[in-house]
Amino acid sequence: MCRWLAYQGETVYLESILFEQEHSLIQQSLCARKSTVTVNADGFGLGWYDERKEPGLYHEILPAWSDCNLKNLAKHIKSGLFFAHVRSSTGTATNRSNCHPFGYKNWLFMHNGQIGEYESIRWQLDRLIPEYLYNERRGATDSEVIFLLMIANGLEEDPEQAIKTTLSQIFKLMKEKNIEEALRFTSVLSDGNEMIAVRYSSDESAPSLYFKQYDDHIVIGSEPLELSNKDWNKVPSGHIARIKNHSYCAMPLFDE
Amino acid sequence: MCRWLAYQGETVYLESILFEQEHSLIQQSLCARKSTVTVNADGFGLGWYDERKEPGLYHEILPAWSDCNLKNLAKHIKSGLFFAHVRSSTGTATNRSNCHPFGYKNWLFMHNGQIGEYESIRWQLDRLIPEYLYNERRGATDSEVIFLLMIANGLEEDPEQAIKTTLSQIFKLMKEKNIEEALRFTSVLSDGNEMIAVRYSSDESAPSLYFKQYDDHIVIGSEPLELSNKDWNKVPSGHIARIKNHSYCAMPLFDE
Amino acid sequence: MCRWLAYQGETVYLESILFEQEHSLIQQSLCARKSTVTVNADGFGLGWYDERKEPGLYHEILPAWSDCNLKNLAKHIKSGLFFAHVRSSTGTATNRSNCHPFGYKNWLFMHNGQIGEYESIRWQLDRLIPEYLYNERRGATDSEVIFLLMIANGLEEDPEQAIKTTLSQIFKLMKEKNIEEALRFTSVLSDGNEMIAVRYSSDESAPSLYFKQYDDHIVIGSEPLELSNKDWNKVPSGHIARIKNHSYCAMPLFDE
Amino acid sequence: MCRWLAYQGETVYLESILFEQEHSLIQQSLCARKSTVTVNADGFGLGWYDERKEPGLYHEILPAWSDCNLKNLAKHIKSGLFFAHVRSSTGTATNRSNCHPFGYKNWLFMHNGQIGEYESIRWQLDRLIPEYLYNERRGATDSEVIFLLMIANGLEEDPEQAIKTTLSQIFKLMKEKNIEEALRFTSVLSDGNEMIAVRYSSDESAPSLYFKQYDDHIVIGSEPLELSNKDWNKVPSGHIARIKNHSYCAMPLFDE
Repeated sequence: MCRWLAYQGETVYLESILFEQEHSLIQQSLCARKSTVTVNADGFGLGWYDERKEPGLYHEILPAWSDCNLKNLAKHIKSGLFFAHVRSSTGTATNRSNCHPFGYKNWLFMHNGQIGEYESIRWQLDRLIPEYLYNERRGATDSEVIFLLMIANGLEEDPEQAIKTTLSQIFKLMKEKNIEEALRFTSVLSDGNEMIAVRYSSDESAPSLYFKQYDDHIVIGSEPLELSNKDWNKVPSGHIARIKNHSYCAMPLFDE
Repeated sequence: MCRWLAYQGETVYLESILFEQEHSLIQQSLCARKSTVTVNADGFGLGWYDERKEPGLYHEILPAWSDCNLKNLAKHIKSGLFFAHVRSSTGTATNRSNCHPFGYKNWLFMHNGQIGEYESIRWQLDRLIPEYLYNERRGATDSEVIFLLMIANGLEEDPEQAIKTTLSQIFKLMKEKNIEEALRFTSVLSDGNEMIAVRYSSDESAPSLYFKQYDDHIVIGSEPLELSNKDWNKVPSGHIARIKNHSYCAMPLFDE
Repeated sequence: MCRWLAYQGETVYLESILFEQEHSLIQQSLCARKSTVTVNADGFGLGWYDERKEPGLYHEILPAWSDCNLKNLAKHIKSGLFFAHVRSSTGTATNRSNCHPFGYKNWLFMHNGQIGEYESIRWQLDRLIPEYLYNERRGATDSEVIFLLMIANGLEEDPEQAIKTTLSQIFKLMKEKNIEEALRFTSVLSDGNEMIAVRYSSDESAPSLYFKQYDDHIVIGSEPLELSNKDWNKVPSGHIARIKNHSYCAMPLFDE
Repeated sequence: MCRWLAYQGETVYLESILFEQEHSLIQQSLCARKSTVTVNADGFGLGWYDERKEPGLYHEILPAWSDCNLKNLAKHIKSGLFFAHVRSSTGTATNRSNCHPFGYKNWLFMHNGQIGEYESIRWQLDRLIPEYLYNERRGATDSEVIFLLMIANGLEEDPEQAIKTTLSQIFKLMKEKNIEEALRFTSVLSDGNEMIAVRYSSDESAPSLYFKQYDDHIVIGSEPLELSNKDWNKVPSGHIARIKNHSYCAMPLFDE
């Protein structure tokens, strides 16, 4: 289980959100509160949008709290839409290719969750990646393959449908292998304009997801950035949230 | 606060002590039990004696739990006297030069503790290092300067006296600066034959130190390697322990 | 293009071969002589056999010349059969999962060469890896996929046949895609007893391979370890060499 | 011997200078042309000014050419005054604390050169650092101590005088120890407005320094960024250059 946050709103220095908070993501890397896994120190990453079409990406294998570069970059990089992620590996190696967020053209994706018994269907999953996308497979994580499948399933045209198709595809493979562990998927995507967040699990334990609306921005992430939950709302399990111009709108992911 | 262990006894693969224990040091790097600081992930290190006069040294900035090299080395390196250390920085950078154990000729040293308000007397401390030793100063930690001062104070001839002189020297500097934070020093030294461990603090809170005698070896370290404390004995605060041929003998460090 | 060496003979400290040579592999990482690529600094690795059934492995992303751990390990690790490799990436990322040698059970493999236009058949190549081996795919290199295909093709039973089948398989894919770049493959394998080296290219430019027989050991590698080539023999292009009890025997890889 | 460049002029993306040049600094890290040391791969660093008072800093121990983060940051960070440095260690460890540029308040400094027989006067040099600056000593390089001495000698008030005083101070220590190796110092400083570059050596071999004036910017650095030297002017040895509003003015450092 990992921790992440995504920001949309007025252009700010990243440090104001990443460091200068009561229960910042950097703090969560050392001591998460809404998870049984409290240490998220198997690498981390940033993705941010600015005037360029493709977002910036920064991945590091050190724990977020001990990377002096991160402190410096967060003091000098400004953005109105950015992602940050601290990783707790569920098995794959600690290297930069396995760090979130993942990028593709103007898209960013990051993820907290896992495909149950991933190792026993990794072969099947990788074979679903179409040839034209295959060189984008740089690491070995389940998160990266989910992202590539969403792209293959039409993310750029209809993200909501692409998410649903991909989860169904994975769930089908899991069933064929009689996998009993859950498919957990609390994630966020962006094309640079909109953020699309999902809180989903095939069982009752979807990884936590909170958001808070401020006057000029919105933050969504695994945990409230304050010790109090006040004004932090839970995204309901099984829901997809679309965030644009820092306004939030959620609906069930799958029709019941 | 860091965590460490030292082993003396029959030659074993390091993995038997470092990994194959109920509450191994690798486990302690993620979740220490006898400390308010539970995560020790700001680098780690190994030192081990074999047939060569100078011990082997291995330092890494990744958390101990995520270094695939450590798993491999621990499976293939055998030793009858070795040190291992997982670091929680009290301020200095996460780089290899700041990782324990520190080596000098045939000596190893590692440390859990700190010089109170170290930054305000670092200048004075470094100036106590004699010229002939100064190029051994590779990092910026208080631990390394303590080691160099012990060497300057005659470690190779009379380790016990060298430890006492050094602690007194530091304590004197702290007094001159009216430093109220404690001088905490739970450490172990070896020349390859004997291990000399100290549990000391200028206040009532000396960092924990336990040992256990087995048939053919002894382990001393910050925490018991089992979840139960059974057969693990505390080294009393203010004591120095000398361990040779896996027999343990402790006495007060300073005469009262 | 990378540089590598393999040693078989009397048990020695690795440093005697890796560092204490006129034109050592560490020197080759900075300044290779028998290659148009002179810098091999995109990570490196060691693999060595000792009493354990599976070999030890050490991979690092720093240049070999600047890793203080390598110096220390080479001073303390002894082996009678070991591999060392300094990498010059042909495109994939500098991370440990992409460093040679690769290990599987008691086998080691390392490689200098490349599959021409690898990126355009990576998808096809990965799909040839059988399901039972797929979780061994940790990185993204062509070298790793070649190793896994050799295992799939019976390496453990008949290494020579497995090598031939694998090269033919790859060559067939390259032909189907009309790839004109060459398939270059100068490599070595071992099961812990025997070393099997191949110098092969589909064109006239097989990467260099030399060996030298000493009284009690043999060294085979990309370059002579001395500035003079004296007593260093070239392995002929298109040949496979089998080395056991430090005796060398080479024959053509494919029947003409 | 290292390689560096400094840019002053219109605000640009760093990539336009760091990557998109015929003989870019990244290229120089692999294959320098104006130096006997051709590989500069013992870490690198960036420093850049933007709206904040203190410059941004980024240090990494990987070779510049293999750091995927550098490519990304250079694509997204814009500046009108920035420094970049690729390091070739003259002895001290490859860690971030030893990477240039060094920062202090609004100042940046980087350096190519060395204090002859530095190890034999490191003790004396560090003792010249005043107490109030001592916690800025994070690594072990001669470059960092030179920077701290310049600050102690009044860099913020009169940089030219501070440089001269510092070089004289060092030269005096070298003489006292009868050091015959040269003091070489090709460096650049900035407070965010002006760049002050020095090309100096106590012998005839000052490390190279070139500059080129463009319509809206100026670049100064160890090597021309093009394969042709056309329009690249040498800074004469023994000179100090002051660059402001992309105009260049040089004079002898010491009166003859």
